[in-house]
Amino acid sequence: MHSCFHPSLQIGVQSLSEDEAVHVSRVLRMKAGDDVRLINGMGSSAVGQLLEVGKRKASVSVESLDIHEAERPKGLMLVVAPTKSNDRFEWLLEKATELGVESIWPVWTSRSERRIDKHERWEKVLVAATKQSQRLWKPSLQKAVELSVFLGHAEALGQGHGAVAHCIPEMQGLPERVDWKQWQIDKGQAWLAIGPEGDFTLDEVGQMVAVGAQPVHLGEHRLRTETAGMAAVAQFVT
Amino acid sequence: MHSCFHPSLQIGVQSLSEDEAVHVSRVLRMKAGDDVRLINGMGSSAVGQLLEVGKRKASVSVESLDIHEAERPKGLMLVVAPTKSNDRFEWLLEKATELGVESIWPVWTSRSERRIDKHERWEKVLVAATKQSQRLWKPSLQKAVELSVFLGHAEALGQGHGAVAHCIPEMQGLPERVDWKQWQIDKGQAWLAIGPEGDFTLDEVGQMVAVGAQPVHLGEHRLRTETAGMAAVAQFVT
Repeated sequence: MHSCFHPSLQIGVQSLSEDEAVHVSRVLRMKAGDDVRLINGMGSSAVGQLLEVGKRKASVSVESLDIHEAERPKGLMLVVAPTKSNDRFEWLLEKATELGVESIWPVWTSRSERRIDKHERWEKVLVAATKQSQRLWKPSLQKAVELSVFLGHAEALGQGHGAVAHCIPEMQGLPERVDWKQWQIDKGQAWLAIGPEGDFTLDEVGQMVAVGAQPVHLGEHRLRTETAGMAAVAQFVT
Repeated sequence: MHSCFHPSLQIGVQSLSEDEAVHVSRVLRMKAGDDVRLINGMGSSAVGQLLEVGKRKASVSVESLDIHEAERPKGLMLVVAPTKSNDRFEWLLEKATELGVESIWPVWTSRSERRIDKHERWEKVLVAATKQSQRLWKPSLQKAVELSVFLGHAEALGQGHGAVAHCIPEMQGLPERVDWKQWQIDKGQAWLAIGPEGDFTLDEVGQMVAVGAQPVHLGEHRLRTETAGMAAVAQFVT
């Protein structure tokens, strides 16, 4: 059954967004009386009946909600510098959603070359991937902020577990990197920061270490930003 | 230092391919006398000196080779049905190379909708990703074959360890799926088959089980073909 995204889902008559109404009416050619599934991306779902189906609007009657707290995705927060190529960043958003990530925190770093927060477009990628993978929880997407702003919140996040992946060879007194796959094993929640093309600066790694982050590596080879992000999510154990 | 791909690398004067010569002369604007690194994608590398640099050809003098057997990628063979979207398949080739896969075996299955073996184009994706990630070993790319042809070789591959990832709910007497992350732990080598959009058929899974493959899953959620392949490579432990 097709799932429609409806962020404010509740019991009663629900109006679909224009995107969803167009999909239901023109792509799926559904009619009044057909059953349709609604999800709110925060663990609630419902099977409702289409009441009206127009070209650009549709409504659904919802009589009960199912709450799926247990399916909440594993508690990894990905703190990531958007790549120069928006395509590559959107790939990461899609794959991280399919594989199960709790939230995405885009951050600007000193080597970030592209500083455009495409929040609404990125949100659409997350919604599409959530529906495609039949998940009930959509990762939450934060507004893009300077790394220093994120660091102001960092100690309260991930139950105090944070990590920073980088490839700087000379650590100049900062802690050595450990293997992410090993480090994450006993962490129920954690945040992981992934740098931009050109990596974090030593100073930025130092700032993250100062708020308690563990430097980590994702293997011996250089990975692109989006590859590092996806691999880290795939390797994070619930 | 820039790495050029030279599959037949040996000691002596080496002519670069046209692609590599154009890159060296026009993009990097290198000149005779400059040092350049050559890799053969099979563990050998050399630092040589550019002798001649033309617009479309260049030669390099190589005095010694370094052999890096130890950096050979982990022994995972990915047996995968090319996706309808060539972009998505090329993305998988790029990511599997970055993350480290030994070989890629494209196979046609009964639900494969796109049966075009873009071997040369795919090979270029593997070469580019090998260079980009500074690897010395390029995954070997087999010619695309019917799944049944692959199965004729399967028992001799992966030291006898094979697995098939699928999402069929009713197994009708076939072994239950186990968690790929758990199953792969003690396998130094293995092959893993990933189905196309629409999955393998029950019959195809049965054929793979008949040659010794273990049915596996990659988590509770539906993953796209390319996401499943990438996640399985990221999770495979050397």
